[in-house]
Amino acid sequence: MDETDPRILFGQRLAALRKEIGWSQERLALESGLARSYLGGVERGQRNVALLNIVRLARALGKPPSDLLVFPE
Amino acid sequence: MDETDPRILFGQRLAALRKEIGWSQERLALESGLARSYLGGVERGQRNVALLNIVRLARALGKPPSDLLVFPE
Repeated sequence: MDETDPRILFGQRLAALRKEIGWSQERLALESGLARSYLGGVERGQRNVALLNIVRLARALGKPPSDLLVFPE
Repeated sequence: MDETDPRILFGQRLAALRKEIGWSQERLALESGLARSYLGGVERGQRNVALLNIVRLARALGKPPSDLLVFPE
């Protein structure tokens, strides 16, 4: 697993924001309209998530889309 | 053309950042390794750009990836 892969970084960021508000993957799936299995893949860094789903996840979390692309240096 | 479509907003943001540094689409294509025709489609809001290409474009422009997802409210 390459820790600098943007897919990994995005998955970690998404999981962190989700946990910050105390949501399960199930809850985020429900709120965003995305499948839980897809979300699991995203959080494990296995998905090259595209813009429309990034924005959908951001809206569900109540964050600006740019927040999901804030990665550690 | 729906001005609130994230694909449109992303295309406008990308074009703005590119012009800020005085680059042509050709130059950005060259620096990012993406095809010029693909980039044209992205800037016209016709593409649902995925994470790896967002990061590639950000790196080419010398910006953090989150900068490309800063949209007007």
